[in-house]
Amino acid sequence: MSFNTFGRVFRFTTWGESHGPALGATVDGVPPGVAMDEAYIQQFLDRRRPGTSKHTTQRREADQVRILSGVFEGRTTGTPIQLMIENTDQRSKDYGEIAQAFRPGHADITYHLKYGHRDYRGGGRSSARETAARVAAGGVAQAVLRDLLPDLRITGYMVQMGTLHLDRARFDPTALDDNPFFLPDAAAVDRWSDYLDTIRKAQDSVGAAIEVLVEGCPPGLGAPVYAKLDTDLAAAMMSINAVKAVEIGEGMAAAALTGTDNADEIRMGNDGPIYLSNHAGGILGGISTGQPIVVRFAVKPTSSITTPRRTIDRHGQEIDLITKGRHDPCVGIRAVPVAEAMAACVILDHLLMDRAQTGGQRGLIGELPQN
Amino acid sequence: MSFNTFGRVFRFTTWGESHGPALGATVDGVPPGVAMDEAYIQQFLDRRRPGTSKHTTQRREADQVRILSGVFEGRTTGTPIQLMIENTDQRSKDYGEIAQAFRPGHADITYHLKYGHRDYRGGGRSSARETAARVAAGGVAQAVLRDLLPDLRITGYMVQMGTLHLDRARFDPTALDDNPFFLPDAAAVDRWSDYLDTIRKAQDSVGAAIEVLVEGCPPGLGAPVYAKLDTDLAAAMMSINAVKAVEIGEGMAAAALTGTDNADEIRMGNDGPIYLSNHAGGILGGISTGQPIVVRFAVKPTSSITTPRRTIDRHGQEIDLITKGRHDPCVGIRAVPVAEAMAACVILDHLLMDRAQTGGQRGLIGELPQN
Amino acid sequence: MSFNTFGRVFRFTTWGESHGPALGATVDGVPPGVAMDEAYIQQFLDRRRPGTSKHTTQRREADQVRILSGVFEGRTTGTPIQLMIENTDQRSKDYGEIAQAFRPGHADITYHLKYGHRDYRGGGRSSARETAARVAAGGVAQAVLRDLLPDLRITGYMVQMGTLHLDRARFDPTALDDNPFFLPDAAAVDRWSDYLDTIRKAQDSVGAAIEVLVEGCPPGLGAPVYAKLDTDLAAAMMSINAVKAVEIGEGMAAAALTGTDNADEIRMGNDGPIYLSNHAGGILGGISTGQPIVVRFAVKPTSSITTPRRTIDRHGQEIDLITKGRHDPCVGIRAVPVAEAMAACVILDHLLMDRAQTGGQRGLIGELPQN
Amino acid sequence: MSFNTFGRVFRFTTWGESHGPALGATVDGVPPGVAMDEAYIQQFLDRRRPGTSKHTTQRREADQVRILSGVFEGRTTGTPIQLMIENTDQRSKDYGEIAQAFRPGHADITYHLKYGHRDYRGGGRSSARETAARVAAGGVAQAVLRDLLPDLRITGYMVQMGTLHLDRARFDPTALDDNPFFLPDAAAVDRWSDYLDTIRKAQDSVGAAIEVLVEGCPPGLGAPVYAKLDTDLAAAMMSINAVKAVEIGEGMAAAALTGTDNADEIRMGNDGPIYLSNHAGGILGGISTGQPIVVRFAVKPTSSITTPRRTIDRHGQEIDLITKGRHDPCVGIRAVPVAEAMAACVILDHLLMDRAQTGGQRGLIGELPQN
Repeated sequence: MSFNTFGRVFRFTTWGESHGPALGATVDGVPPGVAMDEAYIQQFLDRRRPGTSKHTTQRREADQVRILSGVFEGRTTGTPIQLMIENTDQRSKDYGEIAQAFRPGHADITYHLKYGHRDYRGGGRSSARETAARVAAGGVAQAVLRDLLPDLRITGYMVQMGTLHLDRARFDPTALDDNPFFLPDAAAVDRWSDYLDTIRKAQDSVGAAIEVLVEGCPPGLGAPVYAKLDTDLAAAMMSINAVKAVEIGEGMAAAALTGTDNADEIRMGNDGPIYLSNHAGGILGGISTGQPIVVRFAVKPTSSITTPRRTIDRHGQEIDLITKGRHDPCVGIRAVPVAEAMAACVILDHLLMDRAQTGGQRGLIGELPQN
Repeated sequence: MSFNTFGRVFRFTTWGESHGPALGATVDGVPPGVAMDEAYIQQFLDRRRPGTSKHTTQRREADQVRILSGVFEGRTTGTPIQLMIENTDQRSKDYGEIAQAFRPGHADITYHLKYGHRDYRGGGRSSARETAARVAAGGVAQAVLRDLLPDLRITGYMVQMGTLHLDRARFDPTALDDNPFFLPDAAAVDRWSDYLDTIRKAQDSVGAAIEVLVEGCPPGLGAPVYAKLDTDLAAAMMSINAVKAVEIGEGMAAAALTGTDNADEIRMGNDGPIYLSNHAGGILGGISTGQPIVVRFAVKPTSSITTPRRTIDRHGQEIDLITKGRHDPCVGIRAVPVAEAMAACVILDHLLMDRAQTGGQRGLIGELPQN
Repeated sequence: MSFNTFGRVFRFTTWGESHGPALGATVDGVPPGVAMDEAYIQQFLDRRRPGTSKHTTQRREADQVRILSGVFEGRTTGTPIQLMIENTDQRSKDYGEIAQAFRPGHADITYHLKYGHRDYRGGGRSSARETAARVAAGGVAQAVLRDLLPDLRITGYMVQMGTLHLDRARFDPTALDDNPFFLPDAAAVDRWSDYLDTIRKAQDSVGAAIEVLVEGCPPGLGAPVYAKLDTDLAAAMMSINAVKAVEIGEGMAAAALTGTDNADEIRMGNDGPIYLSNHAGGILGGISTGQPIVVRFAVKPTSSITTPRRTIDRHGQEIDLITKGRHDPCVGIRAVPVAEAMAACVILDHLLMDRAQTGGQRGLIGELPQN
Repeated sequence: MSFNTFGRVFRFTTWGESHGPALGATVDGVPPGVAMDEAYIQQFLDRRRPGTSKHTTQRREADQVRILSGVFEGRTTGTPIQLMIENTDQRSKDYGEIAQAFRPGHADITYHLKYGHRDYRGGGRSSARETAARVAAGGVAQAVLRDLLPDLRITGYMVQMGTLHLDRARFDPTALDDNPFFLPDAAAVDRWSDYLDTIRKAQDSVGAAIEVLVEGCPPGLGAPVYAKLDTDLAAAMMSINAVKAVEIGEGMAAAALTGTDNADEIRMGNDGPIYLSNHAGGILGGISTGQPIVVRFAVKPTSSITTPRRTIDRHGQEIDLITKGRHDPCVGIRAVPVAEAMAACVILDHLLMDRAQTGGQRGLIGELPQN
């Protein structure tokens, strides 16, 4: 029932507004004795930080995270970890205009209708700035996972931006961090860059699709029926600003498949089952199979554009509105590290839940204990 | 942290296995004084009931619901409502074979790996039979919504089955209940029927896409950031068996749009804001706008097919498996009433949550109090 | 936020009214693979069953529990266990009178004020009959604890009934089950019996105090700050009908002690710390020490008495009311197995929570790993 | 399942250690539009602040609260309120000794056993300093209650300190704030002061009992069966450091009463029911009656005393330990504002829950709508 909390055992509550003094995450349920420091968490925030290329907002935030509790002498104590990020570059004057008007496609009008009173500066609580707190919480999750599941690897990347699609034949995860698009195809970067330049110069914005790949996840994570791993991943991704769809494995394409095509046939390997395909995206009946988990989601185009749009103000007056300020032409880009963070939190949460219920024991196949 | 509970204020916990003595739902948080009886809930179960056409499983279940608690003299008392459906047609012999083998695409292998010990009869807890309990819980939600939001209308229908798509120009909701596909286009029924016959005769199955339309939902339902209305709808739909994707409004297509196209411009009408389009699917910033809410999801093809598939058994032996038994060639069909039920539960839950936090009061636009 | 659910990981939701068709408990979070059958759970219900002596209500209920789900071939599957107890001896006619009147000391008036509409038969949901469902859920917990903590022993007994107190010098747990008072002092049984006879013949009732002793609980269960073991035990006991106070260790008497008296000094034994006293009742900072856990609570006298009391009816008319029906002269007696059940549920819940967070690992003292 | 969160709809999560950089509370579920500022909350913290008399610890903390989010232009926005209190007077050197040793009666040993790794400085998370965060959260609750229940009044006071008891015939709530004991009897203050001086000079400490009186609470708050108002109050009080017992109304004394004595008879007044006594302490069946709610609890004597006590260190060595540092000789004194804060949070939480389920409507008695 908590509106601002995510998770079941590993839980975090984010707080803070775009232009308030600070924002952060309160993280509970962290196992004790895990190595943790600000520098480790900071690297995740740095990946998400705005102002690092012309393709993202020019707002300049250091996004420096501070650990205020729950860590002692470099290790977690099992008590709540408070992560705080101070806001430093809050040009509120940019936003004065939207105090009265409702930007089309924004939460302005629904927050106004629901709460009556809202912090309109920069979108307040509905700003994508809230996702910085998620990335910090994800850093905590990553540190714990490094300990408990050292083989786990979570990788997010863009697979679509507007009319451009990733050529999967050229998928190269080593290329990811060398371009501003988290694009796993070095050769396509220039084309994506030009495309987004054109969009931006046209005073427009564009949508995107992101994929998150979780490799090294053991089988057995997830719980029927309402705490399925895919259910929680879907909620995690859909909770990110501007996300309009979530897919697992085949996703929407599954509607067009037949059962003979879709079945992931199974053979027996030396270490356990081997699947001949992965239409399921690594999850069956809500529980991980041990195959890579594949999650994909779509982000709508940034609603804040400098092309005038028709709207109303809070007095019901019809106006044309240009949204000034510093906005990402493709807000989907920065959703990549956010999605990785959410995936890390979900996986850890389920690992701890599984530990609670089964003690981490697995059923046998043949003589093999499954890890 | 409850594995089998859905919801925050209006909560239900389903229980029961496919071939156990009974299954049901324990529903908590129901407002008192609402008219409620078994006949009202039964009508929703009847829509979902198997064995009603050649296109669904030939298992014959009366699916007769009994109210064991929480209703007195025809009205709810505010205490938990226990809904029980006895299983009557459990041909366990059909399923003896799968006690040892893992059907590809099924939860057999993941349940085995996680729990070691499972009720394999008919898929046990992972069977789509669990959704009967959801539909019963949804009936309770519908009864309450009838009281609190009399203008609300929730309509589910198929928009895709394999290679066939609904022609949206011919959308006719009055046609829905007169065909076995919940298809809102009477003229297309024969074609869909022939198509599915062909699939079934080929010993195959096929996927589907379903859309749920919620009309008459007031603005202001939903709560940032992790209890967004779309987040909860995504979790609700993804928790249904075999669902692989969930879309709100434009869904995955949003990735290809520009901001100028995607903006739902706003004008002022006599009764409040009027939106010139609904790319958002009725939700902005996780909160309902008052426009129709549009949710879509994909269901994978039934994994149980009589075409042999390669798999292993619990001893690690490689085998070829034909899944006998009585299975739907398109499990997506019966997902329609299930999805309506889940949508009803989510809407009611958020209505009660909103009542808790805001008392149901709305911000003003102009002089108009928004309902 | 669930009104009728208890627990965090091991959770149960009770449902049902005193005079409805059935009542029960939906139990979630149960580890898989644990031996479980109806006979095992039944023995706990038999201890609580009414009609077994002249000192308890003459309502005769078989209280036969049925397992409807979650157990397969004699072992738990990790899915929800539905426990149902059918009501068989519902003399509703006895209760017709209280449909309109509010019995003093009963929940009649508060249920009426809150819900408007209530099942008045036998107190409906507020009846002590609800505790049968708790005892059944407690039976599930006991079965799991037998597996996971074989040395654990939970013992409840009466320490006070009206003006009579247990002579602690004569404490003999072997005497408990041979008398209708769960009194650990065989020699005092006749005196307690005569006393309660006198109360009953005077058309009166009397209060009681019960103690629950948990032996063999390992250190490390409990979690600061709002999931302390004593916090959850206090909530568990206070949730039982008619309970007005809960004490841990010294309880209210701690207010009169000095720090030098109250300190439980520690020495080192072969297997770990040895405490020289147990003022703390086995819990420090909300976490178990390994010493016996001592919980005590007071139950008010049965409010239903045949001596007339002044009250009002729902029309606001002042009346004198005699509560007929079949009531326990000391409702505290039957609270003993209920309290044991609640203690079992709390201990198991914390054991699973601890497994989630710490993996069950303990800090070292000296060279000794602490179990 | 969150270890550090309290509440259901109105929820707060506290974080921070005694000697970390800061501590605070993350408060969620706050209704929007409520007047709120730091000065209002600060007054509650000032009542609890240490160092204000010789009877409390000489640690000097400004305990200045900052609101970091959720409030805009002096009113709540409905989003999470982050309250931060920086620690300024952390003399860690005082505490170096206890890094290795376990103070008898303290959480040192149980935290060590559970977590292996702990922040030992000043008790870390188990320090009573955590209660500052509760008081801040309680300030938020009080501000909301001022709006929603303007007639509500929550008053805490000491009723016992060691061998001294409040003379209830002399109860005078106006005297409360003029003495360091929250003692509602001005004439007794000198005697209490002398008594505590004697205790302190004897290098000892002493227990206490506190009562909280909630006046003006409407009927209908609370929810059967596991979210009873008294259940939640019991959990709230038991979660406060050093509390060993909680009583509602007659409390433990109910065990000695007969039903004729204990019944709170009812007459009809002009505005609704009038109760001729309040043995129940304002709660029947877990739901408020409209009478004053009476909660009482016992606090054990401060465990940190300068009289040597036998204990062990983490290497298993037996030692004698004197706990230096700055400690309250009667930690119960400062529990008074903490208990008021917890009571405010519970009442508000139940008010919001009731709004969710019943919409705040009440059953009729006669022609009178009950407020």
